[in-house]
Amino acid sequence: MFVLKKQLNIVIIGTGNVATQLALTLFKQKHKILQVAGRTKRNATELASKVKAEPITDLKKINSTADLFIVAVKDDAIERVVSQLKLKNKIIVHTSGSVNASVLKKVSLNYGVFYPLQTISKNRSVNFREVPVCIEYSNSTTEKLLFALASSLSDKVYKINSSQRKMIHLAAVFACNFTNQMYAIGEELLKENELSFEILKPLIAETAEKIKNNKPSLVQTGPAVREDKKTMKEHLKLLKDKRSLQKLYRLVSEEIIKTKK
Amino acid sequence: MFVLKKQLNIVIIGTGNVATQLALTLFKQKHKILQVAGRTKRNATELASKVKAEPITDLKKINSTADLFIVAVKDDAIERVVSQLKLKNKIIVHTSGSVNASVLKKVSLNYGVFYPLQTISKNRSVNFREVPVCIEYSNSTTEKLLFALASSLSDKVYKINSSQRKMIHLAAVFACNFTNQMYAIGEELLKENELSFEILKPLIAETAEKIKNNKPSLVQTGPAVREDKKTMKEHLKLLKDKRSLQKLYRLVSEEIIKTKK
Repeated sequence: MFVLKKQLNIVIIGTGNVATQLALTLFKQKHKILQVAGRTKRNATELASKVKAEPITDLKKINSTADLFIVAVKDDAIERVVSQLKLKNKIIVHTSGSVNASVLKKVSLNYGVFYPLQTISKNRSVNFREVPVCIEYSNSTTEKLLFALASSLSDKVYKINSSQRKMIHLAAVFACNFTNQMYAIGEELLKENELSFEILKPLIAETAEKIKNNKPSLVQTGPAVREDKKTMKEHLKLLKDKRSLQKLYRLVSEEIIKTKK
Repeated sequence: MFVLKKQLNIVIIGTGNVATQLALTLFKQKHKILQVAGRTKRNATELASKVKAEPITDLKKINSTADLFIVAVKDDAIERVVSQLKLKNKIIVHTSGSVNASVLKKVSLNYGVFYPLQTISKNRSVNFREVPVCIEYSNSTTEKLLFALASSLSDKVYKINSSQRKMIHLAAVFACNFTNQMYAIGEELLKENELSFEILKPLIAETAEKIKNNKPSLVQTGPAVREDKKTMKEHLKLLKDKRSLQKLYRLVSEEIIKTKK
C-alpha cells in the first residue's frame, strides 16, 4: 500500500527559473531535496547549496530511492532527460504547460504533471500559496501524492488533463507574455521620444487591477472600442516608420471591435 | 494681474467617464462646479446632482464667469463643442490624449490640455493622487492655473507638449487597451474550453507587478523569448480555427524575439 508521507524526498532535475523557485519553496515547506541535477557543475551547485542537496550533472548518479522526481527543464529538453532515466515504480512529473504527460511513460508507470501557472524568474521570489498549480496523473497513486504535494505549497490546486493544460498555457501566453510585450512596446515608444516609462506605471497597475472583479471583455476603453477612426488613423500615422507595429495596431484594434460585438 | 485662487469655479462640459471622475474629484477637493453641460437633460442632471452643480444642455447658457472650462467629451465631439463657445479671456482646456491643444484657440487665448493618463470608467472610483496628469498651455497665465489645479488633485504632474502627449497616448493604447485585449483573448480561450478565467488572475497580477521595478523588455518569459519553435507551432495549431488570433500570435511572437535582440 502507498503511504503518503508529509515530508517527501525529492530529486529536482533542472536549475532554471521554475526549478529554482520550486526547489526553494519545497525546501521551505520542509520537504527534503536529495539532489539537484544540472547540465553544468556550476548550475547544479548554485541551486543545490541553497536547498542542502547534492549537486549532480550525470543522470546515471540519480538517487533512485527518492519519492518524487521533478523534471523542470525547458520543454524541448524534456525528451533528452527522459531518455536517460529508468525509474519503473517511482513517481515522476514534469512542470511544463505544453508537453504531454505521456512523454514520461517510458520512465515510470507513475507519471504526471505539476504545472505552476505563473511567470517565474530565478531572482524573484514567488508566493506559491497564490500560484494555481495544475496537476495531472497516470493513476491514483500519483494523484494522491501530487495532490498532497501541490496542496502543501498552494491554495489553488486544479486537476486538469493534457488538452486543458495546453489551452491554459496558450491563454497564459496571451495574458502574460503578450501583455508584457505590449508594455515593452509602450516602453520603446516613450524612450524614443525621451519620455520615461514611469508615466505608464499607474495605468498598467489599474488595467490589471480592474479585471480582478470584472470580465476584461466588458471593461475595455480607448479609441478602438469607441470605434474612433480619426484617432486610430492618427496613431497609425505615428507608427509610419514601424510597419510591424502598424500591423499589430490594426490587428488588435480589429479584435477589440470584434470582442465588443 | 492674475491671482491664483485655491478654490476654482469650474464648468464641466461632458458627462462621460472622464467628465464624471474628474468632476467628482474636483468637488471632493473643494473646487466649485458651477455647471455640468450634457447632451441630454438626464445625463447632465445625473452628474450635476452629485457635485451640486447646475445641469445645462444648451451651451449658450454657459456661465461665463467661471475661472475654468473643462471640455471632457469624446475626441471627435471636441470640435462641435468648440464651435459653440466664445470665452475670449477665460481659461479653457480639453482632456484628450490625442487632440491638439490649438483646436481651442478659437474659443480663448488662454487654452490648454489637462490629460489624466488613466483608464477611467464612470462607475469605478479613481485615486487621482496616483494618476499622472499631463498639462499643456498656451501661455503662462494658463500654465499657472493648470499647474496649481493639477497639483491639487495629483502628485504626478507632467508638463508636456502636444506631440509628446500624442506619443504617450499611443503608448498607453498598447500598455492598457491592447493589454486588456490580451486578457480578453485569454478569457475567451478558457471559456470555450469550459475553464474559468480565475485561473489566470494571479498570473496577470504578477505580470503587472513585475514591471514596477523592472523594464518589461528585460523580464519577458514564455516560448517566444526562448525561441521554442515546437511550442509556438503547437500553439498555432490550437488556434487553427481562429485565423486572426493565429496572425496575432505570430506577429507578437516576432516582436518579442526582435525586442530581445
